Amino acid sequence: MLSPSPIVPVVLAGGSGTRLWPVSRDSLPKQFQVLTGSQTLYQQTLQRVSDRSLFAPPLVLTHEDFRFFARRQAAEIGMEVTVALEPVRRDSGPALIAAALIARKLHGEGCLVLALAADHVVRDAPLFLDACRAGAAAAAAGQIVTFGITPTEASTAYGYIRPGGEPGPGGARPVAAFVEKPDLATAARYLAEGYLWNSGNFCFPAGLLVEEAARFEPAMVEAVREAVETAFEDLGFIKLDPGAFAAAPAKSIDYAVMEHTRCAAVVEARFRWSDVGSWNALHELAEGDAAGNVAHGPVALLDSRNSYFHSDGPLVAGIGLDAVSVIATEDAVLVMPVDRAQDVKALVGKLKSERHNAATEHVKVHRPWGSYQSICRGEGFHVKKIVVEPGGRLSLQKHHHRAEHWVVVKGTAEVTLDGRVFEVRENESTYLPLGGVHRLANPGRIPLELIEVQTGSYLGEDDIVRLEDAYNRG
Amino acid sequence: MLSPSPIVPVVLAGGSGTRLWPVSRDSLPKQFQVLTGSQTLYQQTLQRVSDRSLFAPPLVLTHEDFRFFARRQAAEIGMEVTVALEPVRRDSGPALIAAALIARKLHGEGCLVLALAADHVVRDAPLFLDACRAGAAAAAAGQIVTFGITPTEASTAYGYIRPGGEPGPGGARPVAAFVEKPDLATAARYLAEGYLWNSGNFCFPAGLLVEEAARFEPAMVEAVREAVETAFEDLGFIKLDPGAFAAAPAKSIDYAVMEHTRCAAVVEARFRWSDVGSWNALHELAEGDAAGNVAHGPVALLDSRNSYFHSDGPLVAGIGLDAVSVIATEDAVLVMPVDRAQDVKALVGKLKSERHNAATEHVKVHRPWGSYQSICRGEGFHVKKIVVEPGGRLSLQKHHHRAEHWVVVKGTAEVTLDGRVFEVRENESTYLPLGGVHRLANPGRIPLELIEVQTGSYLGEDDIVRLEDAYNRG
Repeated sequence: MLSPSPIVPVVLAGGSGTRLWPVSRDSLPKQFQVLTGSQTLYQQTLQRVSDRSLFAPPLVLTHEDFRFFARRQAAEIGMEVTVALEPVRRDSGPALIAAALIARKLHGEGCLVLALAADHVVRDAPLFLDACRAGAAAAAAGQIVTFGITPTEASTAYGYIRPGGEPGPGGARPVAAFVEKPDLATAARYLAEGYLWNSGNFCFPAGLLVEEAARFEPAMVEAVREAVETAFEDLGFIKLDPGAFAAAPAKSIDYAVMEHTRCAAVVEARFRWSDVGSWNALHELAEGDAAGNVAHGPVALLDSRNSYFHSDGPLVAGIGLDAVSVIATEDAVLVMPVDRAQDVKALVGKLKSERHNAATEHVKVHRPWGSYQSICRGEGFHVKKIVVEPGGRLSLQKHHHRAEHWVVVKGTAEVTLDGRVFEVRENESTYLPLGGVHRLANPGRIPLELIEVQTGSYLGEDDIVRLEDAYNRG
Repeated sequence: MLSPSPIVPVVLAGGSGTRLWPVSRDSLPKQFQVLTGSQTLYQQTLQRVSDRSLFAPPLVLTHEDFRFFARRQAAEIGMEVTVALEPVRRDSGPALIAAALIARKLHGEGCLVLALAADHVVRDAPLFLDACRAGAAAAAAGQIVTFGITPTEASTAYGYIRPGGEPGPGGARPVAAFVEKPDLATAARYLAEGYLWNSGNFCFPAGLLVEEAARFEPAMVEAVREAVETAFEDLGFIKLDPGAFAAAPAKSIDYAVMEHTRCAAVVEARFRWSDVGSWNALHELAEGDAAGNVAHGPVALLDSRNSYFHSDGPLVAGIGLDAVSVIATEDAVLVMPVDRAQDVKALVGKLKSERHNAATEHVKVHRPWGSYQSICRGEGFHVKKIVVEPGGRLSLQKHHHRAEHWVVVKGTAEVTLDGRVFEVRENESTYLPLGGVHRLANPGRIPLELIEVQTGSYLGEDDIVRLEDAYNRG
């Protein structure tokens, strides 16, 4: 049963991190990746608020590029979500104001918003729920609550919160100060003085946040309000008006509201938490073996210790390693001492400047209708594995320079070719001659998998003339 | 013009090294791999003896498993070779005696044999030829010549030779002693006292080696003589008789002959040389960049030095590495400090005991008719890229559990299906239903490349009934 003020989880899933390269890349960032356990961080975040007696169905805010991941990964775990799209990134201030405005429309004036980052790791689910209940109690009493994590060490990777004054409802205390990431000595002092880690997760009455923001950032609220009011539905997504939203100044909610409002309160959260800001965070979160090694994926070690291994495919073998991180994907391997994890971002910058494809793109490319993956390429041919989700339809298209052979290996394809529509079933194939106007769709209930063999003198992705597209792409 | 006594290069290409894993594996060892420059070590060895005014066409001795590599890689560089097959490995004693006996048959009683390992790196081609001429002069004067390399450091990785007595023809000096791999202090003394590295390369009159071997190892010579006399031709290879050859005791030529004969002489060779016994050897052979890094393949580095990188595909990225080796192939990555290169063999032993496929097999599997490579695998399907060399013919076969789709992407296929023979050309495809008796062949002049999509409930390599095979396989 929902409490009188429903708690609306808002999952912020628009970030694009490169600190976990080569697994996290611009084209599919860390919140949508499996980094611990068997679900993505985004899925784990949704799971944490799946108790419908406590939480309303989640509202997800993400970037347009990630809209289909947000929907598909929620569907994979049987979770219904509303997905709102930020047309441009404007930091957490405008995002949370938009979330508050949308939540009010969906769940009424009095609803509470629980704003969660989609790319954090939280352990100890009961402690998380305790913190949510405490946060909701404080919010219901008129506070904008930020969750402060009980520090376990003098970390220099996080900002801190200094609580002040007496505990109120939910045990929330007023925020005396927000402080930036400290140096080690300062961090040790903060730890001794009872400061908390600033987790960047919040709970507040939707209306209160908007009111307070209007006080300090009237232009921001004005822009976001317009973007939400003129938002339109597109394929089931709530799309904020691009022009209006772009007019909002880019500012974090801390700078925009929390540092100025008198309603700021902090609830101390005792769950184990990480913002997964680097490979080291994952190393530290995991339980190592007797030698202190953490391995995710196929790994074989000789005489190695205190090291971190993550493989999405290749066998990783190490000899005589001490405090080394090895991250392997199908097309890229990263090796570094564990204490250099903060330099991954700089490396990716270098890779981008050298135009390495692996800097930003994954081998598997996601599309609204499913995904494709290049599996073999040679002179004059290119082989892809294509997956079309149930109901997915590729655009009606033709190519100037290539013919295509399709072999269906799972499910049923509905193929349109020069006006004729026919089905191609498992273990059947068809041929699309050069210039043929064609479309591929999955009319079935299970994903359609097919192998596409392209042949031709030019095989670039840009040899495509889209004549019609279900997903409104150019 | 050949000298009065032709010099017959014998290339020993039967070894199976794991010290250069993951590039070198049992299924395709290091002599057949590109490790420096653009040719394999075997091809580089053949190139060194390509001057037909000095050398006869080479005779290659290799293991049966590698026969098609030996022929194909020679053909790739336009080199005609005779390939003799050792049915079982019996170390270098029986191999060199067999080589001497075959060389006499092919080139006459008086021929000289120049026995070269296929997996060594030699720099300074003119110095190599100088050494060959000196070795041939000494051999022609009745010596069994071993090449001793002028040491460049007190290496503990090599055995040493102590020269004694006065130089004779070709500057060869009698061998005073062969000594095993020393410790560092002993190596330093050897260096000071003028010892030479024992390279395991030889030059001798074919008849003299057999005579001397008969004196110390009569049973060995008897067995090998019978294996050569009852050798038969199989698909153009000289196949030593398996039973007879297996009866020869396994012993190195050093133990069998060189340590006993009065004819042992050493020619000092001044070329730069390595037996490529570890990744370190390749690191040391290459010229590093300003930071001392050596990179083969796609590599991106930040703040790294004195390190070695070899990639056969994936992008290798390193941050803050010092004296680390990273070796990446499509399916396995090895990371270790450079000074642990000698432990690769132990690692591969561990991988074998844990039954990792990558311990012994490459992604690309070689067959007499060409090669295939698994490029994608899923539930109920398996996609391969198949290359059939000109003239290659797969066996006439059928499968109980799978159907196959073939799409030709290069060249022309001759397909036999249930008695019917037809051609499938570039950008055409055909379907082989479950149970169909079929054969694939390349009737053309260029390699045939095709994509095979298998579908079925069981897709193991062992679902094959061979009804007829051009390569006499079971």
